[in-house]
Amino acid sequence: MVESLKTSSEKKGLPPGSLIHVGEVMDQPTRISLIDYNGETLVERGIDSFSQVLEYKDSPSVTWVIIEGLTNIDMIQSMGDYFDIHGLVLEDILNTHQRPKFEAYDNHLYVVLKSLMTHNSAFTVAYEQVSLLVLNNFVFMFKEKSDDLLDPIFQRLRASHGRIRQSGADYLMYVIMDTIVDQNFELIDVLDETMVAVEEELFGTPTHKTMTKIQGLKRELITVRRQVSPIRELMSDLMYCESALINPQTGIYLRDVQDHALRVIELLESYRDILGGFVEIYMSAVNNRMNEVMKVLTLFASIFIPLTFLTGIYGMNFDYLPELHYKWAYPSLWILFIAIPVGLLVYFKKKRWL
Amino acid sequence: MVESLKTSSEKKGLPPGSLIHVGEVMDQPTRISLIDYNGETLVERGIDSFSQVLEYKDSPSVTWVIIEGLTNIDMIQSMGDYFDIHGLVLEDILNTHQRPKFEAYDNHLYVVLKSLMTHNSAFTVAYEQVSLLVLNNFVFMFKEKSDDLLDPIFQRLRASHGRIRQSGADYLMYVIMDTIVDQNFELIDVLDETMVAVEEELFGTPTHKTMTKIQGLKRELITVRRQVSPIRELMSDLMYCESALINPQTGIYLRDVQDHALRVIELLESYRDILGGFVEIYMSAVNNRMNEVMKVLTLFASIFIPLTFLTGIYGMNFDYLPELHYKWAYPSLWILFIAIPVGLLVYFKKKRWL
Amino acid sequence: MVESLKTSSEKKGLPPGSLIHVGEVMDQPTRISLIDYNGETLVERGIDSFSQVLEYKDSPSVTWVIIEGLTNIDMIQSMGDYFDIHGLVLEDILNTHQRPKFEAYDNHLYVVLKSLMTHNSAFTVAYEQVSLLVLNNFVFMFKEKSDDLLDPIFQRLRASHGRIRQSGADYLMYVIMDTIVDQNFELIDVLDETMVAVEEELFGTPTHKTMTKIQGLKRELITVRRQVSPIRELMSDLMYCESALINPQTGIYLRDVQDHALRVIELLESYRDILGGFVEIYMSAVNNRMNEVMKVLTLFASIFIPLTFLTGIYGMNFDYLPELHYKWAYPSLWILFIAIPVGLLVYFKKKRWL
Amino acid sequence: MVESLKTSSEKKGLPPGSLIHVGEVMDQPTRISLIDYNGETLVERGIDSFSQVLEYKDSPSVTWVIIEGLTNIDMIQSMGDYFDIHGLVLEDILNTHQRPKFEAYDNHLYVVLKSLMTHNSAFTVAYEQVSLLVLNNFVFMFKEKSDDLLDPIFQRLRASHGRIRQSGADYLMYVIMDTIVDQNFELIDVLDETMVAVEEELFGTPTHKTMTKIQGLKRELITVRRQVSPIRELMSDLMYCESALINPQTGIYLRDVQDHALRVIELLESYRDILGGFVEIYMSAVNNRMNEVMKVLTLFASIFIPLTFLTGIYGMNFDYLPELHYKWAYPSLWILFIAIPVGLLVYFKKKRWL
Amino acid sequence: MVESLKTSSEKKGLPPGSLIHVGEVMDQPTRISLIDYNGETLVERGIDSFSQVLEYKDSPSVTWVIIEGLTNIDMIQSMGDYFDIHGLVLEDILNTHQRPKFEAYDNHLYVVLKSLMTHNSAFTVAYEQVSLLVLNNFVFMFKEKSDDLLDPIFQRLRASHGRIRQSGADYLMYVIMDTIVDQNFELIDVLDETMVAVEEELFGTPTHKTMTKIQGLKRELITVRRQVSPIRELMSDLMYCESALINPQTGIYLRDVQDHALRVIELLESYRDILGGFVEIYMSAVNNRMNEVMKVLTLFASIFIPLTFLTGIYGMNFDYLPELHYKWAYPSLWILFIAIPVGLLVYFKKKRWL
Repeated sequence: MVESLKTSSEKKGLPPGSLIHVGEVMDQPTRISLIDYNGETLVERGIDSFSQVLEYKDSPSVTWVIIEGLTNIDMIQSMGDYFDIHGLVLEDILNTHQRPKFEAYDNHLYVVLKSLMTHNSAFTVAYEQVSLLVLNNFVFMFKEKSDDLLDPIFQRLRASHGRIRQSGADYLMYVIMDTIVDQNFELIDVLDETMVAVEEELFGTPTHKTMTKIQGLKRELITVRRQVSPIRELMSDLMYCESALINPQTGIYLRDVQDHALRVIELLESYRDILGGFVEIYMSAVNNRMNEVMKVLTLFASIFIPLTFLTGIYGMNFDYLPELHYKWAYPSLWILFIAIPVGLLVYFKKKRWL
Repeated sequence: MVESLKTSSEKKGLPPGSLIHVGEVMDQPTRISLIDYNGETLVERGIDSFSQVLEYKDSPSVTWVIIEGLTNIDMIQSMGDYFDIHGLVLEDILNTHQRPKFEAYDNHLYVVLKSLMTHNSAFTVAYEQVSLLVLNNFVFMFKEKSDDLLDPIFQRLRASHGRIRQSGADYLMYVIMDTIVDQNFELIDVLDETMVAVEEELFGTPTHKTMTKIQGLKRELITVRRQVSPIRELMSDLMYCESALINPQTGIYLRDVQDHALRVIELLESYRDILGGFVEIYMSAVNNRMNEVMKVLTLFASIFIPLTFLTGIYGMNFDYLPELHYKWAYPSLWILFIAIPVGLLVYFKKKRWL
Repeated sequence: MVESLKTSSEKKGLPPGSLIHVGEVMDQPTRISLIDYNGETLVERGIDSFSQVLEYKDSPSVTWVIIEGLTNIDMIQSMGDYFDIHGLVLEDILNTHQRPKFEAYDNHLYVVLKSLMTHNSAFTVAYEQVSLLVLNNFVFMFKEKSDDLLDPIFQRLRASHGRIRQSGADYLMYVIMDTIVDQNFELIDVLDETMVAVEEELFGTPTHKTMTKIQGLKRELITVRRQVSPIRELMSDLMYCESALINPQTGIYLRDVQDHALRVIELLESYRDILGGFVEIYMSAVNNRMNEVMKVLTLFASIFIPLTFLTGIYGMNFDYLPELHYKWAYPSLWILFIAIPVGLLVYFKKKRWL
Repeated sequence: MVESLKTSSEKKGLPPGSLIHVGEVMDQPTRISLIDYNGETLVERGIDSFSQVLEYKDSPSVTWVIIEGLTNIDMIQSMGDYFDIHGLVLEDILNTHQRPKFEAYDNHLYVVLKSLMTHNSAFTVAYEQVSLLVLNNFVFMFKEKSDDLLDPIFQRLRASHGRIRQSGADYLMYVIMDTIVDQNFELIDVLDETMVAVEEELFGTPTHKTMTKIQGLKRELITVRRQVSPIRELMSDLMYCESALINPQTGIYLRDVQDHALRVIELLESYRDILGGFVEIYMSAVNNRMNEVMKVLTLFASIFIPLTFLTGIYGMNFDYLPELHYKWAYPSLWILFIAIPVGLLVYFKKKRWL
Repeated sequence: MVESLKTSSEKKGLPPGSLIHVGEVMDQPTRISLIDYNGETLVERGIDSFSQVLEYKDSPSVTWVIIEGLTNIDMIQSMGDYFDIHGLVLEDILNTHQRPKFEAYDNHLYVVLKSLMTHNSAFTVAYEQVSLLVLNNFVFMFKEKSDDLLDPIFQRLRASHGRIRQSGADYLMYVIMDTIVDQNFELIDVLDETMVAVEEELFGTPTHKTMTKIQGLKRELITVRRQVSPIRELMSDLMYCESALINPQTGIYLRDVQDHALRVIELLESYRDILGGFVEIYMSAVNNRMNEVMKVLTLFASIFIPLTFLTGIYGMNFDYLPELHYKWAYPSLWILFIAIPVGLLVYFKKKRWL
């Protein structure tokens, strides 16, 4: 079945708390980068060993640590120890089959999101799990692989001295969530284009292939919806949690993300309903063509079968078959040969079969 | 796909807070008009520069500023600065892909609605986003383009000295919302006429085109519903927000708008169910016609094929074929030629195939 | 489309608060009657001018004013003025396209209901809007037309000296609502009979007409449900409003109306599900008949086409066609003519096609 | 339609509070029996006049009065008077078209349930309304007719000296409700058997009759669900009502009944979904058979029609038709007669039509 | 029908509180084993008589008693007596037709779960009811039969000296529940593989058998969902119960189980939707093949029937049929024999029937 439905029974038999990476992306070496910023300064650096992160532990500036690739379990274990992260959170970070969710702990917030991307016109969606760990002045971000998802945020951090540079870790969390949710609009644009193409096929000469395309889109939508719809609940939980880690002013921004998520969900619903209509149009088109074929058959058969019967009569070899000897028999038969089809055609026309 | 489903990925990569116009209507120059009124006086004027609006800032009369066309971003930015509007609100005003929603800020209320219009009988709906910004004695209204949506309100303001002229900005907000929601009833009237036309086709000789019309209506309904159904929640939020900007007496009027919105939503549900029935009638009609065609084919084939076989027998050239020499053979064959079809017709009649 | 879906865009452009009658029944002259009663006395009289109603304004007996026909707008305006009724209520009374709803004001309660009646066996439902205005010792009732809806209540008032004569305006309100809700049971009885008739057709020889009947019922049910289902919410609102106008003891009676409304709604759901099954039975019956027709065609064609081929062979005029000269050729061909059909029939029988 | 959907418009025009029996079972004479028990003694007796019940009114033992048959209205009226039962409750007891419900009054509890029974394999369900009136140390039970529903409870009362004999009227109420709810499991067992039989037909040679059986089951399920699903709400109301008539310890037992009711409802949902699948299997089977028939027709027609054309050619009587005089013409034609069918069969085989 | 839908009417007529084993697994002799552990020591032993369990009653270590096989009713009765377990709980333990549920009593918690296993590729699921009784330092576990479900937990207990060995009975309860819920992921993996196989059939040459496979999967999914979806509610009840038996720190772990259960439920929903799409693809494939067959029939019939008619004409034996004597008649007829099929093929090609 579709990859994204593949579930995780790999962990079976292991105690809760034993860290192991579960997921599709297994060959991405772990790469850590760090951005430390405040209103005045911005430091970007790559990190080799986790101890380098600890240098920033007590600084008042916001430190954003990005871990790409989840194969280095030791590193995540030591991060958990240094920053006092709950064991279940560490487990969930490593298991990429999570539902999007938000969990508030005493000293940290934990957010799981799915980053959805599609690059081709067949609307094949690639899913990446993104985990955020928000502490006081610290944001840890865990991604399955390296990609360009975060580039716009990097640019804003570097370019502006505005709100993002003035605000705390909670605002950075908001910016990241906003980026991931808004990505879905691009996804929907691709979906829209794909559906326009399918629709053109549908109004041309749809075949069974068109149907399988429609069903393929339906199935991809099912998975996308499953990854997107928990965001609604996630955002409410986040907005109504009364954690000291979230500045009240950030609430308005989170409401905005919530709004976007709702719009994505409503759009997905709309597209699903439209796909349901596609199936009906396809069925109607197929029925229509079948009808056309049957009409042609009926036309030929009902016209020529009676005529052939007539020729059969006068092809018989009876000694006593008087019409055979009438001079006008053959020509007058031709009158029938013409009158019968014309009569039937007129009749079918009247019945609106032609 | 349908225009209105087109989503907004244009803003990708921009920081939240960067103002940019997102939408379909790009070539409408920004036009500002202003109406300032109280129980006694009414001033209507066009505005060239935003500073003219500031003249009314401290007057106790209600000032209604109508901005048509969203391309003048500087103007909106300066409005936001002068009146202390939250940056996300400014963004949302410029992005015409919002869900209808209500947001209460300390010093202003923000309402987004969709104005739905249709002019032709094919039920193609044009969507326009209308944003309302309600401050103390001030209403800013942002529209994508110029149209006659507000004419009735203008007339009432000019003509009457009644409640609207005696009341504050919240009552003006109510009047505008009422106008936009009630517009949907006109929409539904057009939908109703379109459906009557489709229904006539359906009870005549429906074709595949009828089906695509039904599906087109279905799809337009999906989009309309998506734009209308959030109003239910919007109105509750508005009625239960305890903003000082809303006079308690206005609550009864808002409940009335809520009622109308509910009625629109229920009507849309009814029409959707009726369209579902249309599909079933269409399918039944198509099946019916297929049945008719098959019956004709079966009738001709089952009557004439046996007769042709009979003529075939006596068309054979065997030396020894005694019937050929009987004098009564040919006439008695004619008895069969008549008896077989009559028998079959009686049989089919009895089986209720005719 | 169906009349009852016709919406009201007639009021477009009028200010809220301008009274105008909106509805289908336009030619019913307004007729007012008044019943004033308490435990001992009962007065019934027709009313010409509204001032006659005012005579009863301060009496402790219950006064029930019935206004049939909504064309006399002046009268309703003056009633509103005398009894201090909110302008929106007056508007809603005149606009017969309301959803059933309950609204509590300081000095009066407002209830809108739909009275549903059907007189014929085709289950065509006539809708009438009934508005109730309950004040202290006063009930105003507004109906679109004169009919026999209230006759049973009149009889009870005249006959009994029981609870209804002992109780206040709230109990009268209950009795009226009970009467209107229970009317739906009669409606459902007619629906039941109509469906029995359709079902008989369905198990006989259903045609496309049966299908359109089913769809007609479906559509009428959609409208009925739309008018009935808001009663559930209306009754809760009424039961949980803490108006001084409702005696706590009446609450038990309102719960009874609520119960009946729930039962009506559940019955309508059941009938809708059953109609869904009707469509499936119809489709199955049509498929079945198509199958029968195809089998006959296949039977005739597959038996006689091979035989005709055989006769064709020996109808050929080759000089060298030795079988033609064998004496036993023709009789032995007849063996084939019999053996082939018999063989095919046995084969078809074995395959369960016959 | 089905009997159980028949609604009650018989009462039309009667005041609320007028007692009249509404229902299908009209000829059952009223039969009263009484069981009075405590831990030590148990008295069972038939009752002729209601005054005999009053003897037990002030005794501390539990008195269970069973009224079978609802035609004796006077008796029920006098019971209501003696025990101070609300008039609406008396009405509801006599009207057997109630939804299952629970109502708490000051001095009594009122429970309506439906006892569902089926005796035959066609899953035709008989519905009986059972009303319970629970007072302090008194349980009145109203049934439409005499049957063996209560036999197991009688046996337990007689045999045991256990909890039921030690407990109060509320525990007896629980035992009765438990018995009625658990009866549904028997019903579901019959449903299961019926569905197994239908399924066998479905995997054999399903006909239109199979379809009507499926639809019949569907419809019966609709009615059963309508009678069973309100129990969920009834039980919550009962468990959360804070009546002094219910011992807190009985709560755990009521939760158990709730559990069983939930399980019944979930099972009914499952069976409904399975029936939906049955319709799809049926449709697929019918399509399949149609396909088979069409293939046979196509096979015969496409093989023999070309051959017959060939024989037609050489059956023509042209003076100049040279092939007729070739000696090898006829034998070589036979090669064609064999080659063409073989070729077509191979082609059809390759196309997977055979 | 499917075994798991088989309901329990075996207990009919028995008083609540009478212990009797209800279920499918009847021949499993009761086998008791006991594990007693704390941070330092671990004792595993088989148990013959229940009195051996009592030795551990007052020890502070956690004692886990596993009862496999539910036929030894006396043992369960005596357990209930010794540990003061409510009679309804004992009943529920013995009746294996429970819904998954959680119940909190004063001195013990009761959890019912279903362990779902599948071993073969046809996705036939075996259901086993697992009951947990959690007391202070005691966990009783009741299973229907012996299997390897608990092996991973045994291994963890034996191997580690970690959290599980340090924690109390509530943590053991969590570990067991986690194991049972996570088992469903394996189930879903098997389901996924089965569906991939069905899908391959679907895109090859699907037959009616494919349809029955799809329906079989659908039905199994219905049952699985019925057993899994109550876990959502169970977990909330468990998390929000304020029993002293649950350590607050265990709450986070229970939330994790809740999360996994939600994911299972969402995955089951997705698979159900995908199966719905399978039905549509199947129907489309069948229609497609029917269309192909009809086209071949139409092609052959519409080409050869007219030609045969032509041969029929010149096979007639009229004395006066002048064409028969023209020398070019036969060859020019061959031109028609070729031109007509070519013309029809071109026409059909243009109409896109080929």
